[in-house]
Amino acid sequence: MTRNIAVGVIGTGEMGTRHAHNLHRLVPGASVAGTYDVDRDRAARVAAECGGATPFGDPHELIRDPSVDAVLIASTDSTHAAFVQACLDAGKPVMCEKPLAQTAGDALRLVQAEQALGRRLIAVGLMRRFDPQHLAVRRVVKAGGIGKGLMFKGTHRNARVPTHLPGQVLITNSAVHDIDSARWLLGEEITEVFVRGMRTRPHFSRETVDMMLLQFRLTNGGLCTIEVTAAAGYGYEVSAEVVGEAGTVITAQPADAVIRLRGQIAAHVDQIWLDRFRQAYVDELVGWTESVRAGTPFGGASAWDGYISQVVTDACIEALNTGLPVAVPTPGMPDLYRQDTLREGVRAD
Amino acid sequence: MTRNIAVGVIGTGEMGTRHAHNLHRLVPGASVAGTYDVDRDRAARVAAECGGATPFGDPHELIRDPSVDAVLIASTDSTHAAFVQACLDAGKPVMCEKPLAQTAGDALRLVQAEQALGRRLIAVGLMRRFDPQHLAVRRVVKAGGIGKGLMFKGTHRNARVPTHLPGQVLITNSAVHDIDSARWLLGEEITEVFVRGMRTRPHFSRETVDMMLLQFRLTNGGLCTIEVTAAAGYGYEVSAEVVGEAGTVITAQPADAVIRLRGQIAAHVDQIWLDRFRQAYVDELVGWTESVRAGTPFGGASAWDGYISQVVTDACIEALNTGLPVAVPTPGMPDLYRQDTLREGVRAD
Amino acid sequence: MTRNIAVGVIGTGEMGTRHAHNLHRLVPGASVAGTYDVDRDRAARVAAECGGATPFGDPHELIRDPSVDAVLIASTDSTHAAFVQACLDAGKPVMCEKPLAQTAGDALRLVQAEQALGRRLIAVGLMRRFDPQHLAVRRVVKAGGIGKGLMFKGTHRNARVPTHLPGQVLITNSAVHDIDSARWLLGEEITEVFVRGMRTRPHFSRETVDMMLLQFRLTNGGLCTIEVTAAAGYGYEVSAEVVGEAGTVITAQPADAVIRLRGQIAAHVDQIWLDRFRQAYVDELVGWTESVRAGTPFGGASAWDGYISQVVTDACIEALNTGLPVAVPTPGMPDLYRQDTLREGVRAD
Amino acid sequence: MTRNIAVGVIGTGEMGTRHAHNLHRLVPGASVAGTYDVDRDRAARVAAECGGATPFGDPHELIRDPSVDAVLIASTDSTHAAFVQACLDAGKPVMCEKPLAQTAGDALRLVQAEQALGRRLIAVGLMRRFDPQHLAVRRVVKAGGIGKGLMFKGTHRNARVPTHLPGQVLITNSAVHDIDSARWLLGEEITEVFVRGMRTRPHFSRETVDMMLLQFRLTNGGLCTIEVTAAAGYGYEVSAEVVGEAGTVITAQPADAVIRLRGQIAAHVDQIWLDRFRQAYVDELVGWTESVRAGTPFGGASAWDGYISQVVTDACIEALNTGLPVAVPTPGMPDLYRQDTLREGVRAD
Repeated sequence: MTRNIAVGVIGTGEMGTRHAHNLHRLVPGASVAGTYDVDRDRAARVAAECGGATPFGDPHELIRDPSVDAVLIASTDSTHAAFVQACLDAGKPVMCEKPLAQTAGDALRLVQAEQALGRRLIAVGLMRRFDPQHLAVRRVVKAGGIGKGLMFKGTHRNARVPTHLPGQVLITNSAVHDIDSARWLLGEEITEVFVRGMRTRPHFSRETVDMMLLQFRLTNGGLCTIEVTAAAGYGYEVSAEVVGEAGTVITAQPADAVIRLRGQIAAHVDQIWLDRFRQAYVDELVGWTESVRAGTPFGGASAWDGYISQVVTDACIEALNTGLPVAVPTPGMPDLYRQDTLREGVRAD
Repeated sequence: MTRNIAVGVIGTGEMGTRHAHNLHRLVPGASVAGTYDVDRDRAARVAAECGGATPFGDPHELIRDPSVDAVLIASTDSTHAAFVQACLDAGKPVMCEKPLAQTAGDALRLVQAEQALGRRLIAVGLMRRFDPQHLAVRRVVKAGGIGKGLMFKGTHRNARVPTHLPGQVLITNSAVHDIDSARWLLGEEITEVFVRGMRTRPHFSRETVDMMLLQFRLTNGGLCTIEVTAAAGYGYEVSAEVVGEAGTVITAQPADAVIRLRGQIAAHVDQIWLDRFRQAYVDELVGWTESVRAGTPFGGASAWDGYISQVVTDACIEALNTGLPVAVPTPGMPDLYRQDTLREGVRAD
Repeated sequence: MTRNIAVGVIGTGEMGTRHAHNLHRLVPGASVAGTYDVDRDRAARVAAECGGATPFGDPHELIRDPSVDAVLIASTDSTHAAFVQACLDAGKPVMCEKPLAQTAGDALRLVQAEQALGRRLIAVGLMRRFDPQHLAVRRVVKAGGIGKGLMFKGTHRNARVPTHLPGQVLITNSAVHDIDSARWLLGEEITEVFVRGMRTRPHFSRETVDMMLLQFRLTNGGLCTIEVTAAAGYGYEVSAEVVGEAGTVITAQPADAVIRLRGQIAAHVDQIWLDRFRQAYVDELVGWTESVRAGTPFGGASAWDGYISQVVTDACIEALNTGLPVAVPTPGMPDLYRQDTLREGVRAD
Repeated sequence: MTRNIAVGVIGTGEMGTRHAHNLHRLVPGASVAGTYDVDRDRAARVAAECGGATPFGDPHELIRDPSVDAVLIASTDSTHAAFVQACLDAGKPVMCEKPLAQTAGDALRLVQAEQALGRRLIAVGLMRRFDPQHLAVRRVVKAGGIGKGLMFKGTHRNARVPTHLPGQVLITNSAVHDIDSARWLLGEEITEVFVRGMRTRPHFSRETVDMMLLQFRLTNGGLCTIEVTAAAGYGYEVSAEVVGEAGTVITAQPADAVIRLRGQIAAHVDQIWLDRFRQAYVDELVGWTESVRAGTPFGGASAWDGYISQVVTDACIEALNTGLPVAVPTPGMPDLYRQDTLREGVRAD
């Protein structure tokens, strides 16, 4: 009885395949209408795995096809902005994996195009906003029990890293999530950034900066510190803490079982982000397809969030390169993106 | 493209309503075809909430109706056995909330009827088998790292309790879950039970036994101890631990966020079982509807498990009443119920 | 300026050596006056390690020697009662490692002798009463926040075990500590015991019972369950939990550091009781020597506690042997042993 | 038999009184010989509480008095350097509460005076080096299991704060401890500092900076981030984490008991540093008096550590005031202060 949302998936690499499988198997009232990938075989394979969806040979055909209600973009970063613009042109809702664009200017143009349309069609894939642990922290902060939020502390560790990882990539691919967490959890904007990084292994390329500390100032005078460690060795782990006037709240590390063995009490740590954020990825798509069905704005990250993320990561790259603190502009948020009354997450029943 | 499983829900009290909502909103490829309840208004209300399902005036009509692919029974305990038998007569898969029947004899008759059919249509709602924490313990035990499982330790606490709660009700309604956990996690049967209980508040009725310790012997000589506390005050909490030769494994207490406030570091505890086992209830129905669709046996509790649960709870009631250890018969499991190769849970991808 | 307490140590095996070293190095205002052991070399070695104490050739000479202010007995169990009696005869304070005697009758005779003297000279080495974690549980229970204490749950695991360990030894050597914890933390006496045990490895001797569940009834109708596992494999661990009307309190597992490594978040578990209770052993001697100096009753376990421990362990052995619940006598506590106003632990400043 | 170390205590405020009581009651082989305070009554009271020590009217008389084996300085910060110099002049071992001096220059003069003497008489009271949790982290790092240490992360929270707290005071009084932890745990020196602070409450004085983030670069290219929050509200808490190549290690939060009550699982947090570091303060004095007795260098912080702390805090104050990253000089450590083979802590037996 529920209207089905048929999604076209552009980009069927690791992330896009996960999204397609989630839409097909775990998101009620959603299906995969079609797929596109530069690797046609891969697109066809994922289409077949998702209940016989149509593999498209041209992404713009997929976007325009009447069988496609909404579009999910998980292709390579440099293609995002143009595909999102095409979705706007076709008047179709679109979920774009971060980054929304490759420059702040490109992101701003998408924001302006959306404003010209007068309705929000763009969702950005910053999935932590649907993670049960991050949502719990958000709820505690909003409930006010710990007082006004004064500081954000983020930790972001990957188990393994390529031997060539320029610092700007660590910022735009990894730190961008923590930047979004800081803004979202505190409800403040970032006004100054200071960044220091390190190449942790001599055999990594000279340009590699695989460990980083980022320190921010916020609009309310508050502070942030973010650790991004790409070669943490032991596993993949993310934590987010808010220090308030009266107390603090931090994401619990998810644990299923506690094992006592060989002189230790231990819990398992996930190895990759797809495992850690398994539920968040499903809930993000549930929330998104529900918003598409209802014609209401998406409860997760908006085009505006995608644009501001770009503005902050640009400043972080400059701070890393110059070694100095860098001021960050804080343009006023257009009315289209105010969403104080939106439902967050998908578990609020 | 996936074949939809249309479920008829008999009994739309608190538990049945939750199941109906889950089927309608959170279980992909499932829907609510119809509802029945002795309170017709309630049945109609839930039917309306679930996408306009049909409210039936007669449960047997619901069971026989061709629009109903499978039946979920959440009505009052005394009606379970007859409804399950009617499902068998109609050749329809049925998920029956525990208890399967009210006497071991009645449960055995259902087992025998199923055996006569030669295929498994009966699923029993012991949802912990789908709880992520319990599944994690099960996986660790099966992986063998902690050696042979020697002991099960269960804790089962409700926050609040009615002032009249006879000991046998605590056994059949609450301890039955822990009994199933012990059998499932260790893969052994219970051969002896010893039970002591307590009325914890003077204002509870004289027949009330709201706190209980159950101690078992297992087929491999192993041991169990189970605490059931109905008036724990602070919240609802379940834990399950297996002690093995080389180590132990215990369910982690689910936690979203850790709060530092007023001299404490604290995590939230759920207040009712519907919150604690929210995900387990969804996953149980996902697993069940998948098995219905595929025509394969359900990966959770079978009619046999429902029957053995009844045998053990009967012995526990006798032990509570006599004050003595009571031997428990361990009939051999019919071939129909061997399922060593079944996939468990729904998160194994 | 503080009066020094010179202690004679009888028995310089592993436990007695630890006590002697603690007295010499870590207990302010105490020293080792002399040592005795059936192995004279060992006694001499420990005497030398403790600042040049006198090695005695006869334990009764040590007890009577005017240089000895107080006596610590850590010799083999069968010698305890006679040495304690000799200390009473000499009018000297004595700390006796558990068990106080080998039969309830012998223990009772010491209680009666002490009563005849009219002052308490006997302290029994049940060191958990000085463990910071156990004291914290005790304080929470006494403060009343969790309501009336209804249940005690104990876990007691050793890493390794001799291949020959008769069940009665597991009861008198290991379970005796948990029995004392139950009585001390709840302030109730044990009225019924039920015991089941297991030999966990086929290569252990046929008489071995190295894993045990003990279930008790208390004077207030409350309940206890105690796990004693002698071959836990992974390490040495003790926990004590009290379930009250409004909440529960459990000993925290001591942890120094939390390590993230190879896919795990882990904390270290001690391997032997001497490490786990390192501080408790020191604090027990601090409390004991302070009581000797002040001439006030010892804040830890008394001769009465030693006697009741024996009564309960006797009943447990009978329960293990008969397979039936066994009633435990609960003689009234003589006035000499009431100590409601005593200071507990040594950290209350 | 052990030689007693008689200590003269200069300054009997909160900290000095705690040290005096510890020396008198909890440090074996130590006593309080005399006390001095600008408040003569207070000095006399503490002297009386410590076994009848001598209250001195002149601190230099105390330092020179033949009954005083060693001196502990806990007077107001501005007096430290001169009292330490007087101890050097008298050839007596001295434990000086941090800071060693008020300028790097004054501290350096004490280092040079000590070098001229050719033996180490100065100990600096940075007590975390004796905290069991910090020692455990240090042991894990030194054992090498987590690989080379790359990053230090410190958190330092006080429950309450005066309404006037200039940023430089927060640096010299609070952050100085975390600076020492970073140097000690990683074995690296700090080469660059960047500091941002915040006044968290409008009613605090305008000069107040009660919340601070400090970010450092280290000699090996590694990084540090330190949070100092003076008005954390909920309690006093310190944590120290080292991120290594293969894993991480962090101080466990000390916990005695875990309480389940009113919908929470909770552990207590200390309210003041004297409670959190109770054991560290005792062990620091045990280690110091043992080193005085043996004539060996103190295993804790040296005059060199006190000097370098001053150099780093000077740079932090400049960074706070200028808003820019500030380079920190790293003078070579004189041979006198190399102590690779020293025993650390007092629990290594």
